[in-house]
Amino acid sequence: MISLPAMIERAARLNPDGVATRYAGRQYSWTEVGDRTARLAGALRSFGFDVGDRIALLSLNSDRYYESTFAVCWAGYCVVPLNTRWALPENAYAVKDSESRAVVFDDAFADQAQQLVADVEALEIAIYAGEGDCPEWALSYEALITSNDPVVASRRGDDDMAGIFYTGGTTGFPKGVMQSHRAIWASAVGALPDFSMNRDSVYLHVAPMFHMADFAGSMGVTLCCATNVMLQSFEPGEVLRTLGEEKISHSLMVPAMIKMVLNHPDLSAADVSNLKILMYGASPMPAATLEYCMSIWPNVGLVQAYGQTEMAPVLTTLSVADHQAGGEKLKSAGRPTAVVELRIVDEQGQDLPRGESGEIAAKGANAMIGYWKKPEETAKAMTGDWVFTGDAGYFDDNGYLFIVDRVKDMVVTGGENVFTTEVENAVISHDAIMDVAVIGIPHAEWGEAVHAIVVLHEGQSVTEEELVIHCRERIAGYKLPKGVTFRDQPLPLSGAGKVLKTELRKPYWEGRDRQVN
Amino acid sequence: MISLPAMIERAARLNPDGVATRYAGRQYSWTEVGDRTARLAGALRSFGFDVGDRIALLSLNSDRYYESTFAVCWAGYCVVPLNTRWALPENAYAVKDSESRAVVFDDAFADQAQQLVADVEALEIAIYAGEGDCPEWALSYEALITSNDPVVASRRGDDDMAGIFYTGGTTGFPKGVMQSHRAIWASAVGALPDFSMNRDSVYLHVAPMFHMADFAGSMGVTLCCATNVMLQSFEPGEVLRTLGEEKISHSLMVPAMIKMVLNHPDLSAADVSNLKILMYGASPMPAATLEYCMSIWPNVGLVQAYGQTEMAPVLTTLSVADHQAGGEKLKSAGRPTAVVELRIVDEQGQDLPRGESGEIAAKGANAMIGYWKKPEETAKAMTGDWVFTGDAGYFDDNGYLFIVDRVKDMVVTGGENVFTTEVENAVISHDAIMDVAVIGIPHAEWGEAVHAIVVLHEGQSVTEEELVIHCRERIAGYKLPKGVTFRDQPLPLSGAGKVLKTELRKPYWEGRDRQVN
Repeated sequence: MISLPAMIERAARLNPDGVATRYAGRQYSWTEVGDRTARLAGALRSFGFDVGDRIALLSLNSDRYYESTFAVCWAGYCVVPLNTRWALPENAYAVKDSESRAVVFDDAFADQAQQLVADVEALEIAIYAGEGDCPEWALSYEALITSNDPVVASRRGDDDMAGIFYTGGTTGFPKGVMQSHRAIWASAVGALPDFSMNRDSVYLHVAPMFHMADFAGSMGVTLCCATNVMLQSFEPGEVLRTLGEEKISHSLMVPAMIKMVLNHPDLSAADVSNLKILMYGASPMPAATLEYCMSIWPNVGLVQAYGQTEMAPVLTTLSVADHQAGGEKLKSAGRPTAVVELRIVDEQGQDLPRGESGEIAAKGANAMIGYWKKPEETAKAMTGDWVFTGDAGYFDDNGYLFIVDRVKDMVVTGGENVFTTEVENAVISHDAIMDVAVIGIPHAEWGEAVHAIVVLHEGQSVTEEELVIHCRERIAGYKLPKGVTFRDQPLPLSGAGKVLKTELRKPYWEGRDRQVN
Repeated sequence: MISLPAMIERAARLNPDGVATRYAGRQYSWTEVGDRTARLAGALRSFGFDVGDRIALLSLNSDRYYESTFAVCWAGYCVVPLNTRWALPENAYAVKDSESRAVVFDDAFADQAQQLVADVEALEIAIYAGEGDCPEWALSYEALITSNDPVVASRRGDDDMAGIFYTGGTTGFPKGVMQSHRAIWASAVGALPDFSMNRDSVYLHVAPMFHMADFAGSMGVTLCCATNVMLQSFEPGEVLRTLGEEKISHSLMVPAMIKMVLNHPDLSAADVSNLKILMYGASPMPAATLEYCMSIWPNVGLVQAYGQTEMAPVLTTLSVADHQAGGEKLKSAGRPTAVVELRIVDEQGQDLPRGESGEIAAKGANAMIGYWKKPEETAKAMTGDWVFTGDAGYFDDNGYLFIVDRVKDMVVTGGENVFTTEVENAVISHDAIMDVAVIGIPHAEWGEAVHAIVVLHEGQSVTEEELVIHCRERIAGYKLPKGVTFRDQPLPLSGAGKVLKTELRKPYWEGRDRQVN
């Protein structure tokens, strides 16, 4: 049987003395993590929840976050990793929606956790996994481990639900993605060939562990019986220091993080001699950042992973060799992993010819069970084995996938589909532009008009007219921005580093309904 | 759903124009192989067999072998790849035991196939997949493809049986190993990280395709949407020529094949510039051959895979980096793949401390369903999720597995267990010895005595006494050969290149029962 607990048991058996986790000066072997997980599971079981009940995690990165994830499943429950970027009302929604019975929290979320316990009736237990004194309204994580005997792992696994992962995507209300033990396992297994990890590897968790991308990293580390090193949260200087001090061989970051790390003053002093693979994903990496990274760190293998929570999450990878080949490939999301099948379909779900852009549909052992308590949303997103990703893209002749847009972000103007990524690439190729987001705004005649929101490099300037002239040399007339907004603030980003186009669109669409597929 | 047909559909979708197979001057794209498979499946269905019925393959390597494997499953039946080294009675046994309803055969096996159809009542249909004229008692493979419409693939998959793989092992009567679609898939997926294959890869089938090792190669190629090139059978000069002409990037051979290739006069003229990965397995590779191979082909990455039919088949891999590291690691079978968990157990099935030798037990999504119609054998080989491999080995501190013997080949002398591999290593380190097999022969006092059967290098000589003195410096006294047989003939090998110790033991044990665990 495939299950998260079985993965821990396996690592404890195959690499008993190897370091499993290192965080804040603590270090546990795989034997110790197996034992602690089994004890924490014993504590959770003593609360008398029903098999399959949900338990929420609300915490920054830590070794205990890792243990909790597995302990919840070990006890026979399902894990609900809450979004650390969310405010109380959003997490309260997720806790209520998932009917979570307990929450594991840390110092950063003590206030939110206390409020949740007070507000949400079903939420009975709060477990304090922080570094200070346990609040009186909570139970101490370490005390639970000390005072409970290890229990035998639950026989839940395979197609049983392992967790609910809330995704706002970049649009709409949170949906709980139900993932099975097997789907989580399959996504990680599929990504292993490009991740080149073995039990001597040391993986740095610096992207948020609640997010499916780093969650998949946790699974990969476990499958390889390698070492997890956690940073509580992202600080570029600390990342650079940790890469050297902890002899990090593997990590996963979102492009925005990589950019900040590369722009940090300590960059040149940093020791990255052990860093073998840097995986990035969750959003596209600007070509300039990519090329800069490869020039600064020529011995670091870059791997892009593209996916989504609904696919647990990996769909395609762009390999180290693909990065070294350079050129057009750098703009690609790579090729499907061995566990994934993809199609490009039109609005009727029919296959499109190669080279044409349409919605990416995905199939594989890593597909979600569906959306929690949302049968209609599930039916919209899944047909038979196929999951409709909501992303638009195309395949080239060599089987490389190019993402052109979120389907919902696509601008429909005068009957033509405009993929905003294409317009954004044209705009950002202007030297004055630091960042750009292209959205559709209401237009009486065309339905929507292409609109660019730009952030300038400091000290640079460009007029709207100059920018449109610049773009005219690069893209067709109907794709040109019909208007440009100059913005002083950085673009609003989601927790995963994606531009929140819903927010950018909001002021333009107030009081109207935007029609999307 | 995971299934062999789904793997073909996926490859046809992801790499429609890519070359799927190349054999004897023919070439088919993935679209064509998908279409041909679906048509052949249509033909098979027209015979009116029941879902899950068995269809045997009795043929040397070819593109049609590959297609047939998938077509049988596509139609909803189970494949029975017969052993091309077996004589008629053995294959008749397998056909009868599996109750196969049809057989796909080629020119080399026309006589056997005709006899089987005549002798075995359940065997109704013979399909001629050879290169000449179709015999009148058979149906033409190509005519069946031409005259049948493609059918929709069966929904059998996941835990359903995909095939029965007969294994004599090196001892005893053939047992039919039942493998599910998922197990076959899982073994291949687990091996991918070390196999470094993608859709630009070209894999040479030169080991027999009926054998689980190359069968797994077929699955890996399919998962990667890469190219299959087949050689009908092994001829070292042809292998060397094909490596260059077909720009082979990947292949799998047994050590005996590699040795013959490296000893061939055309070696120095051969073009191996495209050969990236040479996987070997099925039996241990002598250190001298390994080192010679690495010195002759420094740019070819060597990967060892250890496994058995019961595990579909891959358990551990020794990576390219492990080979480059050299030293003691070269004697290891490597580390478990990400889908496999291993234990070392004593005769009571209890875990042994690290470093101690015992039976290797294995668990994973690649485990067999059991032995076909042999519930008692199945119960002996499997306990819960664990498969007892019958191999003896130990783990070192770094998690590398070392195989010391088949449990059944282990010599029990005066109450001590002697692992024959250890004795063989001592013997073969003598310059005069070309090959050696150590077996247990009856001994009135000790139960069994350690006995060495040796083949000398041409023109060399050594006495029994000299050999024992040579070994005494290397191994403990109770492990020393108590007798030596000098043999003119090469040692008898199984189809997989393993020394048939059962045969070597036979003359010594006639009329007695050898006690094994």
